[in-house]
Formats: sequence, structure tokens, C-alpha cells
Amino acid sequence: MSRWAIGMDLGGTAIKAAVVSEERGILTDRTILTDTASGPAGIVGQLAALVADLYRLACESLDPADFAGAGVGAPGAVDALKGVLSYPPNLPGWGVVPLRDELQKCLTETEGLSIPVFLDNDANVAAFGEAVYGAGREFRDFLMVTLGTGVGGGIILNRKLYRGPYGTAGEIGFMIIDFEASTLHAGIRGTLESFIGKKGIVEIAHRMIAANPSGWVVGKLCNNDYTKLSPIHLERAALDGDELSLAVWQRVGSILGVGLANVTALMDIRKFVIGGGIAAAGNLIFHPALDQIRRSTLPSMHEGLELVPALLGNKAGVYGAAALCFGEP
Amino acid sequence: MSRWAIGMDLGGTAIKAAVVSEERGILTDRTILTDTASGPAGIVGQLAALVADLYRLACESLDPADFAGAGVGAPGAVDALKGVLSYPPNLPGWGVVPLRDELQKCLTETEGLSIPVFLDNDANVAAFGEAVYGAGREFRDFLMVTLGTGVGGGIILNRKLYRGPYGTAGEIGFMIIDFEASTLHAGIRGTLESFIGKKGIVEIAHRMIAANPSGWVVGKLCNNDYTKLSPIHLERAALDGDELSLAVWQRVGSILGVGLANVTALMDIRKFVIGGGIAAAGNLIFHPALDQIRRSTLPSMHEGLELVPALLGNKAGVYGAAALCFGEP
Repeated sequence: MSRWAIGMDLGGTAIKAAVVSEERGILTDRTILTDTASGPAGIVGQLAALVADLYRLACESLDPADFAGAGVGAPGAVDALKGVLSYPPNLPGWGVVPLRDELQKCLTETEGLSIPVFLDNDANVAAFGEAVYGAGREFRDFLMVTLGTGVGGGIILNRKLYRGPYGTAGEIGFMIIDFEASTLHAGIRGTLESFIGKKGIVEIAHRMIAANPSGWVVGKLCNNDYTKLSPIHLERAALDGDELSLAVWQRVGSILGVGLANVTALMDIRKFVIGGGIAAAGNLIFHPALDQIRRSTLPSMHEGLELVPALLGNKAGVYGAAALCFGEP
Repeated sequence: MSRWAIGMDLGGTAIKAAVVSEERGILTDRTILTDTASGPAGIVGQLAALVADLYRLACESLDPADFAGAGVGAPGAVDALKGVLSYPPNLPGWGVVPLRDELQKCLTETEGLSIPVFLDNDANVAAFGEAVYGAGREFRDFLMVTLGTGVGGGIILNRKLYRGPYGTAGEIGFMIIDFEASTLHAGIRGTLESFIGKKGIVEIAHRMIAANPSGWVVGKLCNNDYTKLSPIHLERAALDGDELSLAVWQRVGSILGVGLANVTALMDIRKFVIGGGIAAAGNLIFHPALDQIRRSTLPSMHEGLELVPALLGNKAGVYGAAALCFGEP
């Protein structure tokens, strides 16, 4: 009698999909490579085939009457109200695509399945996944930050996704924290992502190495070819006690804290769930971030401040996309 | 049959109060000097006496059965849920004061009036006043910014005040836009208020004058004593075509735009109502602010962007405080 849905996470490299039971969580999952060369029509076809395949498989053991639909989390600007995806990064050749309706149409016409489809931004979907199944269950209101190649965000207010009046809320990566900085991100100066997106983190490390070039542990990890330096090297070296790497994470955490302090000042949100690959650095980032939020807000805003790691890892997307189909609690 | 309430705006210099009809607006108003020397107890007494006085006067022509209560907008951090005011600036000697309950108690004990009392932050109250009676009537969601000595903010979502989980939302003056700046405001580095609060505006002008010292129109207005320079001089001189003053407002507008761009990126709010004394500079600020928001956000966030002047001037507070008593639409 428990409802179930299919959740999908559309990325530039892979499409992840899962059959999710509202009560029991992921029952089956599957990952395929994104056929980016085939453009929107090809990828809609891939999504439809995945849905059809998982739906038929699931119907062998689950009641179709309990099926709630298929949800998709997609990169880039999503107008969740209209079901439209605009200019997703990492999906070359996409402009403005009414992805929700096209997937629904393709499912009907190609697969003969009449299925409700839900679409939202990948960062929103991950936040909703954590809200319903992960680290956000204990919080009524929180911001989820996804630290990876970019810096994404999703806002949960009163246990619901806050999408904003035009459906684009939560873009904390575009928060400007240094309006006269030299760093740019999508043409915008001094954004949080320009500082602590993957590229920004490596730049912080490069600057610190240039100021003090010799003998860092992290050098060995990238064979002293610092052009190959990545956040993973910095993470490993920091765990080995490399002072330079520790200083890099300290700075990354502090800068993250500045961005989160702005969220606290503006929205009064004091709970933060931190996910994404970079979040693996854990307390190396969390401690300085929390310290910085405290330094960067009024004492009257400190009660209840909390940073916690996301719990669902790279499954947050499929969980959240399925949760979209179950509706909001 | 129309409901009525008493709205009050508690400031460091004056207390404004008005009898407000839900349908007809302000019927009577009154302003008294704030007796700051008398501390919380004295000011609670002043508020209670004002309420009692206006209530009895109003009852000569209005039906007490239609009376909705007394609302207060107060400076500083207000926990609207608990009715507590903390460390209001410009009210020396105040710590944490349960102002709502103390006013209610004083009204009962001293004036023999059992009246519902509502309390919120002055910036929130002004935003709610504009939402119900002013420039915000046409917007479902907006941020009101009050530009004066400080920079305050209030958020309206779905025509309701958004107070946030702890009741302190909307503090756009504390948004950090340059985290390594030398400017400080309440100990926090690089906040919007540190740049474009009254002091910040004068500092921008001082720096521009220092870089290019001779013969500005604005100099005549302050008798070439630039230590006496105030935003009013800069406004008058700009209207006379003084290039330096125009450049100051251009920069103030741009910096405001950076702060508002952050609100758009995070909350997806695209309507801004600008009030407060400094907002009298009008289009001198509005045009560069709107340009800057466009430069500082993604093209997908530009639809519907709008900056409008507040309509209620220094009455926004009493309107909003009364509107608190009528409840949210």
C-alpha cells in the first residue's frame, strides 16, 4: 500500500535513476551514460526509456495503483512551475527546453505510458531529498549547499521546497561576497562559486603555493605538477597534516561561512546541510565555516546555528526527484 | 463596520502613533518625543498613555467592537514570535525587553484597558505597511529596503511578512558584499550598511573629494567644510548637476544593486520597494541599482525585475503597525 515513484538525476556525464518506495527508500537503481551528443530529443528519449524500463520492472512486485510518477532533477536554471529547463551547463546545444512536457509526451507516444512527470533544479531536488530522507529530516527550515564543480543551493522552508516567485530560488553560488573582486563566474564578479567552486579552491591553493613554494606534502600527491592539483589532493594532504592544504580548507570554510552568514541575515535560516564531493573534506571546512558565520552575524542570530553533512551522498538527487512525486508533507 | 487599530512607530527621537481604519487609512495621528532617558519602563508608559489617549478619542466616533488592537514597530532585533525587543540602537540602556507583554500589562494595570498588542521590527512593519497600503500593493512578493542612517529590510512573501524561523529575517543591511573590506558595521566586515548607510555614503564622497579636491558644487552647500557633508548636500548638489555628487549616487546605487542581486539569486525576489530618507535621491539611485542587479544576476533572473519608490514616507511604520493588528490577508 506504500506509494512508489521513479526518481532521476540528469547530469552531464550520467543519468541516475531509481525506483523509490515512499516508506522503504530505494528498491532498484540504475545508472547510464548521458548521450550528450544526441541533444535534448535524444536525452528525452533516454529518460523515457529508463522510466519505462524501471516502471515495467517495478510493476512485477509493486501495485501500479500506488505509482506516484516520475521526477527529474536537472542541472541549470529550471522553472519548476512551467517545467522548463534553460541552458543547462554540461549539456551542450540545449537552449530553453520544456523538458517536463516533452518527457511526458515521449512517454505517451513512444512508450504508451501516461505518467505524471515532475521537474526541478538538481540542487533543489537534492535539498528536498535530504529534507525527506536525509540530514534535513530534523530541520523544519534549512539551506542545502552542494559543493562540487560548482556551488549549488536549495532552500527548505517549513519542510517544503522554497522555489521563489519565478522558480529560480536557492542560487547561493551566485551570491556576491566581494563585488570588486577579480574573480568572475558566468560573467558575475566575486560570487561564492568563483571563490570556492572547484576552480576557485585550486586557485586559492595556487596562490598560497606561489607565496611559499617549497616542499608541501600536497606537491608529492600531484607529482609536483601543480597544474594537475585538484581538491582531492588537497583533501588527502590535509588529512596527512599538510599545513598548506589545511590552510586552503580553512580559507574555503571561512569563505563558505561568509555566504552562509548572508543567508542567516537575510532569511533567518540557521541550519545548513552541506553536500557534494567537496564536502568530503568535512570538518576541515565545517569548523571554520561555523566560526565565520558567528563572526559575520549579530549575536542575536547565533541561537540554533548548525552545519551538518548531507547523508544521502550522490543518491540525494534520485531520492529528491522521487519525493517530488509524493508531494510535499 | 470597518475595523480599526492603533499603529505606533517607536524611534530613538520620536514616537509616532495613529488611529488607522482598515478601509479609510489614517484617521488621526500624533507624534511625541521619545523620553529615552526614562528607559524601558518610562517608554512603555509613554506608549501606553498614547494608546489610551488615542483609543478613548477614537471611541467617540468608532465602535469599540471593531477595534483590532495596538501594533508597535520598534528598532533593533525583534523576536516577533515572543514579542521581545533586544538591544535597540538609539534607545540607550535597553537590553532584552519583553516589550509586547510589558505594554499589554501596563495598559491593563495603569489604563484599565485590555487590548491585544502586536510587536515587530520597524523595517518589517514598514514593509508590511507598504504591502497593505502602499507601493507593495501590486506585488505578491517583494523586499522593502529602508535607506536611512542604517540600511533596513523587510520581506513580504505571498503578501505575508516573512519573519523566518527565529523572527529576525530581512536584515539586508548585514549582507556582506565585500568580505575583505576595511569597513565595519556592528563588528561585521563589508556589510551593505557599512557601504551605503549614511556614514558610508559620506565616506564615499570624502574619498572622491580627496582624489579630486577642487571646486565641487557640493562644497558650497556645506561651506567647504567637508566634515559637515551630509547626504542631503549630495542630493541637492546632484540635482544641480554636480558631477561629483552624481558619481557618489551612481556608486551608492550600484552598491545597493549588488545587495539586491544577492536577494534575487537567493530568494528569487525581483520586486524592490525603496524607502527611507536617502531614497529621496530617487532615480539617482534607482537607475544604477537596477543596472547593477542586471549585471550581477543571470539573464534567466531578469524577467520582472523592478525597483519602485515607497509611497507612505514616514507613515509606513504606523500603517504597518496597525496592519499587524488586522492580521494577514
